Amino acid sequence: MTQKFTSTLNLKSGHVDLSHGGGGRAMAQLIDELFVKHFDNDLLRQHNDQALFNVPAGRLVISTDGHVISPLFFPGGDIGSLAVHGTVNDVAMSGAKPLYLAAGFILEEGLPLADLERIVISMAAAAKACGTPIVTGDTKVVERGKGDGVFITTTGVGVVPDGVTISGDRAKSGQAILVSGSIGDHGVAIMAGRENLQFETSIVSDSVALHELVASMVAAAPADIHCLRDPTRGGLATALNELAQQSGVGMVIDEARIPIKAQVKAACEILGLDPLYVANEGKLVCICSAAAAETLLAVMQQHPLGRDAAIIGEVIDDPHGFVQMTTAFGGRRIVDWPVGEQLPRIC
Amino acid sequence: MTQKFTSTLNLKSGHVDLSHGGGGRAMAQLIDELFVKHFDNDLLRQHNDQALFNVPAGRLVISTDGHVISPLFFPGGDIGSLAVHGTVNDVAMSGAKPLYLAAGFILEEGLPLADLERIVISMAAAAKACGTPIVTGDTKVVERGKGDGVFITTTGVGVVPDGVTISGDRAKSGQAILVSGSIGDHGVAIMAGRENLQFETSIVSDSVALHELVASMVAAAPADIHCLRDPTRGGLATALNELAQQSGVGMVIDEARIPIKAQVKAACEILGLDPLYVANEGKLVCICSAAAAETLLAVMQQHPLGRDAAIIGEVIDDPHGFVQMTTAFGGRRIVDWPVGEQLPRIC
Repeated sequence: MTQKFTSTLNLKSGHVDLSHGGGGRAMAQLIDELFVKHFDNDLLRQHNDQALFNVPAGRLVISTDGHVISPLFFPGGDIGSLAVHGTVNDVAMSGAKPLYLAAGFILEEGLPLADLERIVISMAAAAKACGTPIVTGDTKVVERGKGDGVFITTTGVGVVPDGVTISGDRAKSGQAILVSGSIGDHGVAIMAGRENLQFETSIVSDSVALHELVASMVAAAPADIHCLRDPTRGGLATALNELAQQSGVGMVIDEARIPIKAQVKAACEILGLDPLYVANEGKLVCICSAAAAETLLAVMQQHPLGRDAAIIGEVIDDPHGFVQMTTAFGGRRIVDWPVGEQLPRIC
Repeated sequence: MTQKFTSTLNLKSGHVDLSHGGGGRAMAQLIDELFVKHFDNDLLRQHNDQALFNVPAGRLVISTDGHVISPLFFPGGDIGSLAVHGTVNDVAMSGAKPLYLAAGFILEEGLPLADLERIVISMAAAAKACGTPIVTGDTKVVERGKGDGVFITTTGVGVVPDGVTISGDRAKSGQAILVSGSIGDHGVAIMAGRENLQFETSIVSDSVALHELVASMVAAAPADIHCLRDPTRGGLATALNELAQQSGVGMVIDEARIPIKAQVKAACEILGLDPLYVANEGKLVCICSAAAAETLLAVMQQHPLGRDAAIIGEVIDDPHGFVQMTTAFGGRRIVDWPVGEQLPRIC
């Protein structure tokens, strides 16, 4: 049942005000004419404060991710699509099939409703493409100067297929390290946008949902995938260090095997960034048994999102948990945890 | 496995900086020495980007709620305990037993780490008391002036017992409307704090988790509870209007039967607030079959969180979906949706 409002939301020139977070008529209208309209599913349409769904007995995963990216719109996406992809990917990195999303919006007073609509439409399209409806949500509004346009915290649930056990603590010496494609695209696209840099070839974010790539990998070698992680904030270097630490192992990767687009490499040089530390939003790291590495590589390369996949190194015994890299010059260097913050609000 | 940091987090005089959201060493330290330490459970300790748990076949609910309350600390609670109670209650309002929580933090650069620690400790205590561990989370940091200390978006999952079907669209003419206790405490406590008002008797927030009260109600009359809702933003008036709209019914409540503490009533007069529209964080509205109303009332009154429960009215046929109130003077007035926003950032 839809409430009758005296006029429709002014999506052309209206702005978010505090009443949109007040629980009253203005909030109900925002929810009906924007969120329910575009997210469009039966659970949300019930207007309850929670969504109810049936699950078979089994293993469920839950993951949550706040999105505070600046700017809200960037080459290759926006905070809406990113908020879906980021959480779908976190769910998928357990090997799970993502099922449903919940979305919490924190809006800043004064945000143009046209911007919010654009974000919601993008988010709805991403959720639909992923097959993960946004079934429940929440909207808060903070005063001008107490937020920054829109923050979106998205939570996802998914179900893990039988026979699949993927966790960051399962890497073991001798296993292979794979990456699903070229690194650094997302971070460089955002930074280039912020700095107003024009590159010869346009660099766009790789923001995309990886659950179907994961599903094809899991189907091919369910018991051989030990770790999956999407190298977002902090990039490939951080993801590998996290996995090395969790598993209590070391790693050696080969610089020459890490796929990086030429224009991303060039942009990193201009921006003074190390691509190993630059965020990705559509790539994954996989650690698998050595025996299954070539099979998984082939499966990944056959998938549109894994065409440039590569085996980039292997897990070794190392009580210090160091990630080392064989450089193009043949030496080895430690790829350490990032210390400061070179790319704030990249996701 | 815990990473070795050269020094521990300076919880006494340190501040949140952008590196705490960067995915690197500083973030890992914040997570280890604050979140994992206090939230303290095996799932979180795995350091994966998602939490995995087993569920029996059945009906699950998910609910998400952003918390942006100002000030962060208030009489009777803080944003940490509120972020647990708010979401546990949203899950419980489906009749579900809450199981797990996920928490997304958006921190403002410059936030004292001591404040964050106090909030995390409070949140951990609330989660422990509720039996709902915080099993996964996320931390983002925004620049000074782009946030407001801490925002916490909490998502909960729970399991609905067999035979229970509670939804906002199930109210029918003739059913009884109950409230679990006195209204307006939370909003008045926050407003009094903001305005620096001193009342003769101190008013504290009613922020509390209601899932055990709900469990006892569900156990007593599983098939007779049709709707449950916690009257948070917009207060009792808004919750009743929402339910009337969802169910396509009218309601008549009796002003004399609505429990309100004398000091809350007095404070509302001073502050110019109508207590019907003031937020609660530890109360619920229940709509049940008339036959079960007295039984449920007795069950609620026997529970510490329902001692002041009352039957406040009944559901009627009304195609307009109006909520009406018989006033102390014997007349009737419409209790409409709130239009503006009298209490911004109350939760």
